[in-house]
Amino acid sequence: MPFTHTIRVRYVEVDAQGVVFNAHYLTYCDDAMTRFFAALGYDPKETFTEGGAFDVMLVKSVLEWKGSAGFEDELAIEVRPSRIGGSSFDITFTIRVGDRDVCVVVITYVSVVPGEHRSCPIPDEVRGRLEAQM
Amino acid sequence: MPFTHTIRVRYVEVDAQGVVFNAHYLTYCDDAMTRFFAALGYDPKETFTEGGAFDVMLVKSVLEWKGSAGFEDELAIEVRPSRIGGSSFDITFTIRVGDRDVCVVVITYVSVVPGEHRSCPIPDEVRGRLEAQM
Amino acid sequence: MPFTHTIRVRYVEVDAQGVVFNAHYLTYCDDAMTRFFAALGYDPKETFTEGGAFDVMLVKSVLEWKGSAGFEDELAIEVRPSRIGGSSFDITFTIRVGDRDVCVVVITYVSVVPGEHRSCPIPDEVRGRLEAQM
Amino acid sequence: MPFTHTIRVRYVEVDAQGVVFNAHYLTYCDDAMTRFFAALGYDPKETFTEGGAFDVMLVKSVLEWKGSAGFEDELAIEVRPSRIGGSSFDITFTIRVGDRDVCVVVITYVSVVPGEHRSCPIPDEVRGRLEAQM
Repeated sequence: MPFTHTIRVRYVEVDAQGVVFNAHYLTYCDDAMTRFFAALGYDPKETFTEGGAFDVMLVKSVLEWKGSAGFEDELAIEVRPSRIGGSSFDITFTIRVGDRDVCVVVITYVSVVPGEHRSCPIPDEVRGRLEAQM
Repeated sequence: MPFTHTIRVRYVEVDAQGVVFNAHYLTYCDDAMTRFFAALGYDPKETFTEGGAFDVMLVKSVLEWKGSAGFEDELAIEVRPSRIGGSSFDITFTIRVGDRDVCVVVITYVSVVPGEHRSCPIPDEVRGRLEAQM
Repeated sequence: MPFTHTIRVRYVEVDAQGVVFNAHYLTYCDDAMTRFFAALGYDPKETFTEGGAFDVMLVKSVLEWKGSAGFEDELAIEVRPSRIGGSSFDITFTIRVGDRDVCVVVITYVSVVPGEHRSCPIPDEVRGRLEAQM
Repeated sequence: MPFTHTIRVRYVEVDAQGVVFNAHYLTYCDDAMTRFFAALGYDPKETFTEGGAFDVMLVKSVLEWKGSAGFEDELAIEVRPSRIGGSSFDITFTIRVGDRDVCVVVITYVSVVPGEHRSCPIPDEVRGRLEAQM
């Protein structure tokens, strides 16, 4: 079973047409990614703000909407690595409300030296844990 | 025991100084208020977007910071009615991280006719449920 | 010369690493799109919230980052239609700070019947004005 | 004439009721404050993120709404120091759309040692420039 993170839509995230504004989907994915790495054993605060065993940088995001979500909807965000290269990997986020598809997001992350913006090979341990989730 | 809503700080909510940006505290209170009314038996979606038994409008907010919160912190937001008048009431939100006070927010809501911006007396049922939480 | 919209980065939009958080790029593009349609002669408020001559729905967004932006940076967002089909079109947003590329975003919009979510052919007048900007 | 900063409301800032969501007013004030200090001769990037001649910390905000604002409204935010104490000062932000009052916000800032959270007397030069705007 793929890792799944749940988020309830806040009132502030809904626009004048009564649906979640498009940019917030990237925020939801960021939150889901944080919990995914926590589940893999990497403390998010240490990893992403204090300089842990690795760090990543977004280089590409592709979002495709299949439907919309509204106030109080429970978003189930399935998180699954869909490509693991030498120094970059893709995560596919499938966002549903009940059994209805809302949005599919594919984000490409580049592994970088913690504290720098220089890319580096994905550390072996990270690679192993990502592969176990494919 | 007062109603308490918990929110984990998202990465997007933290600013360049590593602390939650001030405006987000009002968003947290809005989210806590939504859950508080859900707990009182008022479906938030119906009440606040479709025209339910009552509606409210913010007229005043007072925020006092005692500390700061950061990425991954768990905010415990205690929600308690602190004044109930004829057509308006105050809710006090006490926000803590662990046993550390972070922010106290007092919001004044005016009862309005659903779908209009005209103020009206707080409906008796709503008043009763608020009083039970003081 | 393509239409260009300028936005100065707000403090709230910068994250703990001192760079603009990824989701805000979609917000910037939305703002640029609004101004682009205003420049084409379509009042944004009437068109996008009151039901004007046409309406659109996002179906896909592709973002590619080439660099980062920080607090107080002036983003120059170039807006150019890059594909015009029967009932959908792509807009390419090229975001720069000075002569430095920061992000390229391609958004696919579907023409919909105002007030409904049903797709429809792009109205001829809209098509003509978009083509003049290619 | 008091310093005035203008902001056009973005679509993302408007909620399901078609009005600016309450928390965004604090963001608008932050943006206006940034421009106000720039106008006083303090480069915001240097001052607020790199450690300049002074720094401030919010300790209190009081917001009172007189009306609402919507998509595409031009907010005129008047910025005026309304109290200058030993180590803290208040700024009053008066937000209008045309000649209509929308919101009045009073924010109390504490002068802190740059890079630390320790309060300190307002530097004389800053005090002088603030007083000239009262």
